[in-house]
Amino acid sequence: MQIGINCDMGESFSLYKLGDDEGIMPFITEANIACGFHASDPNHMRTTVKLAKSHDVKTGAHFSLPDQAGFGRREMKIARDELANIIIYQIGALKAFLDIAGVPLNHLKPHGALYGMACRQESVAHAIADAAVHHGVPIFGMAGTVQEDVYLSRGLEFRSEYFCDLDYDDNGALVITRTHDPVDPETAAERCLRAVMEGKTESINGKEVAVRADTVCVHSDTPNAVEVAGAVRNILEPYIDQN
Amino acid sequence: MQIGINCDMGESFSLYKLGDDEGIMPFITEANIACGFHASDPNHMRTTVKLAKSHDVKTGAHFSLPDQAGFGRREMKIARDELANIIIYQIGALKAFLDIAGVPLNHLKPHGALYGMACRQESVAHAIADAAVHHGVPIFGMAGTVQEDVYLSRGLEFRSEYFCDLDYDDNGALVITRTHDPVDPETAAERCLRAVMEGKTESINGKEVAVRADTVCVHSDTPNAVEVAGAVRNILEPYIDQN
Amino acid sequence: MQIGINCDMGESFSLYKLGDDEGIMPFITEANIACGFHASDPNHMRTTVKLAKSHDVKTGAHFSLPDQAGFGRREMKIARDELANIIIYQIGALKAFLDIAGVPLNHLKPHGALYGMACRQESVAHAIADAAVHHGVPIFGMAGTVQEDVYLSRGLEFRSEYFCDLDYDDNGALVITRTHDPVDPETAAERCLRAVMEGKTESINGKEVAVRADTVCVHSDTPNAVEVAGAVRNILEPYIDQN
Amino acid sequence: MQIGINCDMGESFSLYKLGDDEGIMPFITEANIACGFHASDPNHMRTTVKLAKSHDVKTGAHFSLPDQAGFGRREMKIARDELANIIIYQIGALKAFLDIAGVPLNHLKPHGALYGMACRQESVAHAIADAAVHHGVPIFGMAGTVQEDVYLSRGLEFRSEYFCDLDYDDNGALVITRTHDPVDPETAAERCLRAVMEGKTESINGKEVAVRADTVCVHSDTPNAVEVAGAVRNILEPYIDQN
Repeated sequence: MQIGINCDMGESFSLYKLGDDEGIMPFITEANIACGFHASDPNHMRTTVKLAKSHDVKTGAHFSLPDQAGFGRREMKIARDELANIIIYQIGALKAFLDIAGVPLNHLKPHGALYGMACRQESVAHAIADAAVHHGVPIFGMAGTVQEDVYLSRGLEFRSEYFCDLDYDDNGALVITRTHDPVDPETAAERCLRAVMEGKTESINGKEVAVRADTVCVHSDTPNAVEVAGAVRNILEPYIDQN
Repeated sequence: MQIGINCDMGESFSLYKLGDDEGIMPFITEANIACGFHASDPNHMRTTVKLAKSHDVKTGAHFSLPDQAGFGRREMKIARDELANIIIYQIGALKAFLDIAGVPLNHLKPHGALYGMACRQESVAHAIADAAVHHGVPIFGMAGTVQEDVYLSRGLEFRSEYFCDLDYDDNGALVITRTHDPVDPETAAERCLRAVMEGKTESINGKEVAVRADTVCVHSDTPNAVEVAGAVRNILEPYIDQN
Repeated sequence: MQIGINCDMGESFSLYKLGDDEGIMPFITEANIACGFHASDPNHMRTTVKLAKSHDVKTGAHFSLPDQAGFGRREMKIARDELANIIIYQIGALKAFLDIAGVPLNHLKPHGALYGMACRQESVAHAIADAAVHHGVPIFGMAGTVQEDVYLSRGLEFRSEYFCDLDYDDNGALVITRTHDPVDPETAAERCLRAVMEGKTESINGKEVAVRADTVCVHSDTPNAVEVAGAVRNILEPYIDQN
Repeated sequence: MQIGINCDMGESFSLYKLGDDEGIMPFITEANIACGFHASDPNHMRTTVKLAKSHDVKTGAHFSLPDQAGFGRREMKIARDELANIIIYQIGALKAFLDIAGVPLNHLKPHGALYGMACRQESVAHAIADAAVHHGVPIFGMAGTVQEDVYLSRGLEFRSEYFCDLDYDDNGALVITRTHDPVDPETAAERCLRAVMEGKTESINGKEVAVRADTVCVHSDTPNAVEVAGAVRNILEPYIDQN
């Protein structure tokens, strides 16, 4: 068993700064790099790829619906082929910077509203798969959703995320919030360890629910994100994928 | 001597159609494909790559300043590293569609205002070179300009364009116009042949000026572009690069 | 009874031309002018306002979801207050050009996906009303929908559209298509007259369904839109609002 | 003599926050509100107008070149009529929110690269004037530049800014920097008082140069902007325009 710690990185844009990428990068193993459709721009993409490389962090494409003004958090109804093309475009743009840095594309992860839609809508998950099929890298997502079914049915590799800083409901589904409240780093770390070792977490109502943690997601916009990442890294160190 | 015929392709956007790509594609050898920053979008990029492939037309990236509302025709003052990143992003996005289609990136060509700026401003030409250096393919541009000097000084391959549907002044420089007037197809074709064979063209004032035609550019938004392309292809057929 | 003929105008963008505004403007009484969020830009807005004024055509704001790449035809999930602000912004931008031309804002009309959403979703219709309430002008829309209920419940003026170039189903709902096929101008005109005089139209299955036509909408992207508009104007001339 | 204190406000965008508007607003008299072309969006525009109103701060339009990705800091070459239309659009959009809040448009101020271009290029200053002429409110800018000449020659009201947190060269021109270093609040305040009372400031080289301060500009992105604004307000309180 080898698990990863991933985080959405490179979400600054123009003059705007979002998240403490420099602070968090040392603690993660997989960076989900924004591709310019919900956040980032060519400058921040290049900088983020360099930063990840300097920490030996693996680099994945964090693609989004085309909605910069809404930070990719507003659902959009887009036809499957059109959505696939939008995703292909973003992955290609990121790959250009990966190629220059000499690092491979490690994984794919849909952002925001697209992530949620892929959990529920087959055609959205298929659109993601239509793009992913050209790359041979795993897709990060929620286990037990339409997303997982579609990817696996098409022979794509899937890695299940556990969210260390979000609540789960009694069905093991995420409780999505607009902003991320601070979480206690040690509690978050222990929840991660339990998710990894036992495949279980406590729901918001105190119920024990099944989860699967191939990789643990830390959010960079949680107020104390660096401490959370540090605590998670510390506790998961023995299980981290080292190659 | 083997020469090409190139044309800016895939400049439609959203519902908007620009240029008769289907009509012109059979007559050209190199398609300069818009990358979404002055025109096109992921759907049109994919369609255009497919169309080019079906005609065995080579595919290059036609990148631009980030100015969709101005169709890339408004000069912008952008720092060299930032401009290089903008170009890298666009080439990468196009390459994603080329990879899927299984066709290689054949060449690079700056669009609109960026093209003109690269002819006059060293830092702009260097920004283009900073992106091009990763690809090992020729850049299309105007001979006898800063652009050519910079590319060659950096060991990059350069191919000089001759414009079959634009006027040249007495210094051999292009007379740029906002819209392209119709040109007589046969006259245009003969001008191309002379440019290719003799390296000469007649200026707008009737003077003979030196030009270099490694590849002839046909504009898709000239009103009778298909006929012009057909006539040019017909006259240049013996000299066309066939591999 | 005084009825209008409206058409979506000013949907060109940058170099891209859409619709024959000059050809259609003489036949309509109300222009729905795009505000830059699905189509148009400041130049085309100014030009379109001038064109409408020169034909004594009333000018309304044709606002959209923020989705230029999708021409406003992709549904988006946007919170009510955010959507209201987006609409307020667009109306204000158009009003600037109306003010300069010295013509009043005559009406409001949601575009594309927003139009359809307002027919079905209360919060969307309320967001439109939240913006409209500041202007005291009628909103154009479909009778018998959530849209109408919400506007009327808030004391806003509502004008029901009849679409001369679209099919209706057996429930009197529109059959929406991505592109508009050509329609026979005389048939379209007679359908309009019947809708206006009798409040009835024939469904796509030959059934008679109730409709209400306070204003007849002609689409500018129907292939023979100018002829359709001409025929509709000719037959409705006696009932046209002249002031 | 009655002078103002102005600050660029409402430059947040989407999830991105820029500047401490809540902290600075109590100390200023005139807010220059971003209109969505370099920063802001409809939500932040509405919020900023409300915030300004709650502090009885006058509200002006802070319009920009259309360059969100470059925060309006990259010069663009745009034809006069096109630029005027771009400015008209932005002012109109802001006015919609001012109208709803029941506050008047108080002034106009070009942002970033446009501000600098208006100081040097007649056609740019004329484009601003072409938009301003419809509003009858003063334009903020630099005295002794092309900007001032053009506005005054067209009978427009002009108010000269003094920048409390920027350096001046020996010709009285601003020394523009990409980021704003912290300045000592008391020193900045005393410089302002001297500029207001004596029309003089000390250049970066220690030379005394003439300036004119109808309104003092405080930058919200100076690291200690709130303290600077507080000190400036405190020292200028006796001279502040109270109506």
